[in-house]
Amino acid sequence: MDNIAILGSTGSIGRTTLEIVEKLNHKFRVAGLAAGRNLEVFLSQVEKFRPKIVSLDRREEAEELKQKIRGSSVRVVFGQEGAEEVARFEDNDIVVSAITGIKGLRPTLAAVKSSKKVALANKESMVAAGPLIQNEVRKSEAQIIPVDSEHSGVFQCLAKEKEENVKKVILTASGGPFFRTSIQEMKNKTLEEALAHPRWKMGKKVTIDSATLMNKGLELMEARWLFDLEPQQLGILIHPQSIVHSLVELRDGSVLAQLSPTDMKIPIQYALTYPQRENSVLPPLDLSQIRVLEFYDVDEEKFPLIKLAYQALEEGESIPCALNAANEVVVEAFLKGEIRFYDISVLVRKAVENHQKRKVEELEDILEVDRETREQTLNLIKQRF
Amino acid sequence: MDNIAILGSTGSIGRTTLEIVEKLNHKFRVAGLAAGRNLEVFLSQVEKFRPKIVSLDRREEAEELKQKIRGSSVRVVFGQEGAEEVARFEDNDIVVSAITGIKGLRPTLAAVKSSKKVALANKESMVAAGPLIQNEVRKSEAQIIPVDSEHSGVFQCLAKEKEENVKKVILTASGGPFFRTSIQEMKNKTLEEALAHPRWKMGKKVTIDSATLMNKGLELMEARWLFDLEPQQLGILIHPQSIVHSLVELRDGSVLAQLSPTDMKIPIQYALTYPQRENSVLPPLDLSQIRVLEFYDVDEEKFPLIKLAYQALEEGESIPCALNAANEVVVEAFLKGEIRFYDISVLVRKAVENHQKRKVEELEDILEVDRETREQTLNLIKQRF
Repeated sequence: MDNIAILGSTGSIGRTTLEIVEKLNHKFRVAGLAAGRNLEVFLSQVEKFRPKIVSLDRREEAEELKQKIRGSSVRVVFGQEGAEEVARFEDNDIVVSAITGIKGLRPTLAAVKSSKKVALANKESMVAAGPLIQNEVRKSEAQIIPVDSEHSGVFQCLAKEKEENVKKVILTASGGPFFRTSIQEMKNKTLEEALAHPRWKMGKKVTIDSATLMNKGLELMEARWLFDLEPQQLGILIHPQSIVHSLVELRDGSVLAQLSPTDMKIPIQYALTYPQRENSVLPPLDLSQIRVLEFYDVDEEKFPLIKLAYQALEEGESIPCALNAANEVVVEAFLKGEIRFYDISVLVRKAVENHQKRKVEELEDILEVDRETREQTLNLIKQRF
Repeated sequence: MDNIAILGSTGSIGRTTLEIVEKLNHKFRVAGLAAGRNLEVFLSQVEKFRPKIVSLDRREEAEELKQKIRGSSVRVVFGQEGAEEVARFEDNDIVVSAITGIKGLRPTLAAVKSSKKVALANKESMVAAGPLIQNEVRKSEAQIIPVDSEHSGVFQCLAKEKEENVKKVILTASGGPFFRTSIQEMKNKTLEEALAHPRWKMGKKVTIDSATLMNKGLELMEARWLFDLEPQQLGILIHPQSIVHSLVELRDGSVLAQLSPTDMKIPIQYALTYPQRENSVLPPLDLSQIRVLEFYDVDEEKFPLIKLAYQALEEGESIPCALNAANEVVVEAFLKGEIRFYDISVLVRKAVENHQKRKVEELEDILEVDRETREQTLNLIKQRF
């Protein structure tokens, strides 16, 4: 029986993880939960799974929760430190890191330093602090198993391959809702249209990132550090059916690929049960029903954030962290209706251009780049209006 | 430096193997060659690669060869025993078993019993004598690495997976030249049309087997014993692009697939270099150029030999051996222009129906079923005209 902590339990990945834990209750037990401000959903999770430690973003909701579960022995904490405490919690074997954005970095690091098995869905922490996290993995007994479907696929394909045999890793992208939209039409796409993802049901931030393809850009940077690859070993293919999640090209011309139905239950369950596998509750993949799998190159003119992501991948140091911070701020502004869809890439590019590249070795360096870029990006957004 | 013996060196697989050995001459050396009657090609191979032992099918050609290479120290042998001697030859590390048909069985067994690493292209021996061969593998230090592109793909996908996690293995078939032909039109297809395979350049026997889909039927039976699978764990998908060679469905819904350009150099090289990989000389797979991969179920009415193969897979014992023998004889008659394309499946089915199922435990049992079925099938063909 493995004890699990879920950071970001009320989000899309968090809720799906709990479904899996419920199904596999002979193997897993929830020991800790951390979430943001969604007290209602969180309370029902706490009552159902009875973890030993729980955390919410703010003191207010944490106090309210304490009142509601009065009499239980659950330890209630809050804030960034609270999430870190849940991550470090002694009883945990597995930490599902599924907080969205750079906010997930410190709890992820806490889990790694405590030698947990980390099921990583929080790609932003790997983008901004990949070398730092991998350094801590080497110093600890931690293990990182990716949860993103693309990276889970790569992880499975790489299984027994020696590093020297890996020529290229290709992540697929569905192309998002605007794959078949012209550049002209794209400029005025609404929030609602951008949130209508054709394949995956996800949180709002990652859905917008999928519409701009920035999500794939972040995944490239995540893959770089997860699998210790050089920038030129990474590529993207648009694959509208989202059945092939990634491909690993080997030096002898063989390509290994991982396919599955488009459902996050599969990679999440794999990350939890790894190195074992458990039965799926989903119907099996039926390629003769799907019939056609298509593959296209990315149109970088139409999706300029992909170009920016490749540049950040090459440049390294503080650039990926700045790119991620700028994108988080700009997407938030878009979600609030403050800017148009087209402004996202313009503003992110400008913010990254303004950023002074520098070395980032310590957590504090990274958090400083993040803070600074957020401030500058907010100013850019203000200036624009 | 590994010493290689190639059984069937003048055939398509044999010649491609020699190309690879030439390219990787820092790793491999040809120690033995065996072929049928193509003296001209064989002589040039012997002169170029200077093996220590060579064999031809018949005494006549062997004597002629001896005359032509007079003065060299090459040992020249002939016949079934000759091929077996090449297979067993002490210096060999790797034996490429690429004789077509049941004729490859005894040399393959000889290689296995001598604890060689066997790169297996001769699927018929596994179809007819799978349990016997695998039993000898267990008793020796032999290893079998498949050469067929489909089985090479499965072998690579299975790499680190536990047997209990494997739910299904799917081999793809290009569909051959008649995939888009109606049943009516198929009945009168000529030899020339049947030999015009859209994807793979192969020997005549296997090209006809691809047109009837019998090749895929044989591959199912081969896969059963190669990978120790139950009949119901095996399936086929028509995939006209021949890029995805096979798929392994795991119990958790993940599917691993192996893809590569349609060129036998890739699986042959892999079988030779396994567990290492060497660089490919081919251009890499470019899915955005290929753009579309299609998958269809098999039309068993149109390709009745597939249905027969599934039945043989279920029934086991002497049936697969009889099915293979009948098919070899009937295809030979078709290649000689004695029967029409449509007759192939009718005659093979009749021959298998006439066969008395029995246990086959020893090599002699298998060879007897083979002999008997051949005779009966020849009679069937005669009766028909």
